[in-house]
Amino acid sequence: MHIRQATPADGPRVWELLEPVFRAGETFAVNPAISRADALHGWMDAPRATYVAESDGRIVGTYYLRPNQQGGGDHICNCGYIVDRASRGQGVAEAMCRHSQASAQAMGFAAMQFNLVVATNEGAVRLWQRLGFAVIGRIPDAFRHPVAGLVDALIMYKRL
Amino acid sequence: MHIRQATPADGPRVWELLEPVFRAGETFAVNPAISRADALHGWMDAPRATYVAESDGRIVGTYYLRPNQQGGGDHICNCGYIVDRASRGQGVAEAMCRHSQASAQAMGFAAMQFNLVVATNEGAVRLWQRLGFAVIGRIPDAFRHPVAGLVDALIMYKRL
Repeated sequence: MHIRQATPADGPRVWELLEPVFRAGETFAVNPAISRADALHGWMDAPRATYVAESDGRIVGTYYLRPNQQGGGDHICNCGYIVDRASRGQGVAEAMCRHSQASAQAMGFAAMQFNLVVATNEGAVRLWQRLGFAVIGRIPDAFRHPVAGLVDALIMYKRL
Repeated sequence: MHIRQATPADGPRVWELLEPVFRAGETFAVNPAISRADALHGWMDAPRATYVAESDGRIVGTYYLRPNQQGGGDHICNCGYIVDRASRGQGVAEAMCRHSQASAQAMGFAAMQFNLVVATNEGAVRLWQRLGFAVIGRIPDAFRHPVAGLVDALIMYKRL
């Protein structure tokens, strides 16, 4: 697998990865009806950096990296990761998370924080814990899951 | 004290309240060098609503109210409050926080969350606790305080 910075030319393929995840509304706090333009702006333009993971020349995952807060809080970063449905269970998320930690360190970030890990997203919670993230908070009824209803969300944190 | 929705005409006075607080960089995760235009946009235009507290016809405090997340997380709101230095200790923050909870309920929000309460801001922490907010998380070294250095921040939450 090869992880590299995304370019504007990757937009159409990145949207293929984002669209089903955002439309499903099960894991990201994003309006399920978000437009392609707004979604790509939020994923590829607004963050500090955006990456894609390639396997056999095909993009199978993408992540963004941004400061989680401004001013006195801008030394902690935040990332979001999406893996192509057909490539799940192959270590793509783990590879991207490890890569993002190295990228963040190289940019001078001191820690990484996830603000809203939907508690029903158990695979993600387990993976982040295995990669050294601690649960530092739990938000009651933080997320309206389309199937599970109101579920908690975890706040997770790792010092880099 | 009278609390009402802010209008564009309140901008100059709101900026008088925001500027010293943002420039000091001790309580808000805002770039201390933020421009007047960006600060006022973030406080008065971007949020769902912005209010001012008047005492004897003079604005002594202001707060904003916005969804804390989008999509499946947009039923929890977030607020920020600033009280004029000359009017502190007179219950302005408490009055605004109570007002914001009523405003949020009227808008249909189910809970209120503060994402980054700087731990050194002890007066605020005590006040939010007294008003029913629980500490649901603590972010290690979340904030670079200009005097105290790296300090933790609290995540606080109240069901409405």
